[in-house]
Amino acid sequence: MYTCFTLDSLNHDLQPWIDRLRAGDPRALARAISTVENRAPGWSELLKALFPHTGKARIIGMTGPPGAGKSTLVDQLAKHYRKENRTVGIIAVDPTSPYTGGAILGDRIRMQDHFSDPGIYIRSMATRGSLGGLARTTADVATVLDASGRDLVMIETVGVGQDEIDIVRLADITVVILVPGMGDDVQTIKAGIMEIADIFVINKSDREGAERVEREIRAMQSLATRSDHWTPPIVKTVASEGTGVKELAAAIAQYEAFLQKENLVLEHNIHNWQERLLEMLRDAMLDKARGHLTDGQVTRYAAEVAEHRRDPYTLVEEIVGKLESGKP
Amino acid sequence: MYTCFTLDSLNHDLQPWIDRLRAGDPRALARAISTVENRAPGWSELLKALFPHTGKARIIGMTGPPGAGKSTLVDQLAKHYRKENRTVGIIAVDPTSPYTGGAILGDRIRMQDHFSDPGIYIRSMATRGSLGGLARTTADVATVLDASGRDLVMIETVGVGQDEIDIVRLADITVVILVPGMGDDVQTIKAGIMEIADIFVINKSDREGAERVEREIRAMQSLATRSDHWTPPIVKTVASEGTGVKELAAAIAQYEAFLQKENLVLEHNIHNWQERLLEMLRDAMLDKARGHLTDGQVTRYAAEVAEHRRDPYTLVEEIVGKLESGKP
Repeated sequence: MYTCFTLDSLNHDLQPWIDRLRAGDPRALARAISTVENRAPGWSELLKALFPHTGKARIIGMTGPPGAGKSTLVDQLAKHYRKENRTVGIIAVDPTSPYTGGAILGDRIRMQDHFSDPGIYIRSMATRGSLGGLARTTADVATVLDASGRDLVMIETVGVGQDEIDIVRLADITVVILVPGMGDDVQTIKAGIMEIADIFVINKSDREGAERVEREIRAMQSLATRSDHWTPPIVKTVASEGTGVKELAAAIAQYEAFLQKENLVLEHNIHNWQERLLEMLRDAMLDKARGHLTDGQVTRYAAEVAEHRRDPYTLVEEIVGKLESGKP
Repeated sequence: MYTCFTLDSLNHDLQPWIDRLRAGDPRALARAISTVENRAPGWSELLKALFPHTGKARIIGMTGPPGAGKSTLVDQLAKHYRKENRTVGIIAVDPTSPYTGGAILGDRIRMQDHFSDPGIYIRSMATRGSLGGLARTTADVATVLDASGRDLVMIETVGVGQDEIDIVRLADITVVILVPGMGDDVQTIKAGIMEIADIFVINKSDREGAERVEREIRAMQSLATRSDHWTPPIVKTVASEGTGVKELAAAIAQYEAFLQKENLVLEHNIHNWQERLLEMLRDAMLDKARGHLTDGQVTRYAAEVAEHRRDPYTLVEEIVGKLESGKP
């Protein structure tokens, strides 16, 4: 049988912390996000306790290639929502290495802009090692922001890889940001993200080539229809000047209304949770496997394989077999 | 104890297949790659049988942002190596969705160019679902190409995300391709890949801004030294005209010589296998977990969580606990 490893002392501390967090205390929020992000002791109990308070925030994923001006657009959209008195949490997933400190620096620069407004909370997350499950951690941080009572949570990712797709897939609404003059691979990028985009933005649309990008999106859309029959609109923006931000907010509201009208909200959520549960299961299984292996063992195994004294495929089967038999 | 599920009939068939593959038969090679890529029956036995024949190929990872001209550069480099009578395998990891057929189409177009030369073998791989372990599959396909006797295996990835970093990290040599005029996020990209680049290429270096990119790389390099004290050289190319390709090959050879001289080859391999073994272990554990869960169960669990009738964190702990106790 499964045994629950509840830390009693932790649970006693938990309620006042959660109360402060839900009352909007930024320090309680920051501490909760750090706990979840770093998998610090008690992170799992914290998420369990926060989960019943979630489900109210709208999660918006914003992704696109480097140089598309995502941060600027996200900041502008946040300001727009603040004018409507809605509170915003921003998670900026940044491929900058933690060693260079880029994420923290970026946070500070961006926070300055909104410093006087506690209604906007920005948190940058650096990419983890290959096994860290960034998509999962991002989703967990979004859960914390949701529980803290934010009306909107925006997840901003740089890049167009699978990682970014995994991250934005967990959002309720996915905005894909393109930009004129992306070069040879523009076809490739667009093909890869056609399926995840609920709304397209052509940012820097005052530049030459904006019409071409629009035509290409339309051409791609004519090739395939979505199973829900939604045709992602294309919004043109110049984020640095605030142009088109209102129209983007309107497109987001329109898609939300569509989901409501077609009763797709729950279906959408179930689909997201299918993905997310498997992701969580994968991480939990790996944690378990890692718990049975010391770093020394991993290094020794790696040396045996590197020296061709052992084949890695049989080795992994043996490790899994041992874990399963409970005799590590 | 672990029990080996060897398919005897498969093993009988395996040897002639492997013999043909090692003799350079392109159909045997293509079938082996498909078996591994699709995890078709026998993939694991095949890799076990091929592993002793690996370790001879040099694995070169080539990555960079969309529009950097990677395919063109990889093709040019392949032609260069063919002039030296070295055989080449290319794995193009393509974020194009499998639904659009972009990967297959790209393969055909590129293969036409090399059609008359069996010394170049190109295989495109599309990204998988979130749990497919693209880095692992790519590494396995590289293993097949290595066993087939290719002198060089080039892994080409589009993008700058964690996924791409995981993929190129498994290479012996990593080439990062930049291009002038990448826009606002150029700092971000470069920070993220500084640690993985053994060689930098500035492609399309006849464009304005090439010197600026070079200065920026130099500035970044001055901030941090690598633990092995190698300073990644910067090679300028115009791949579409073949300019700088010879110099890139020379830089690659120089780095290889450095690794040999400093006795870093084995150390490098051990480090790579540490990452790769954990990646393999993660996938194997997930397969095991998935084997105990039907699609129906996953959907039901997802619905319970989406409707907030259950918290996902406790749920996953329970599933893992049940798997561990052997009573699913």
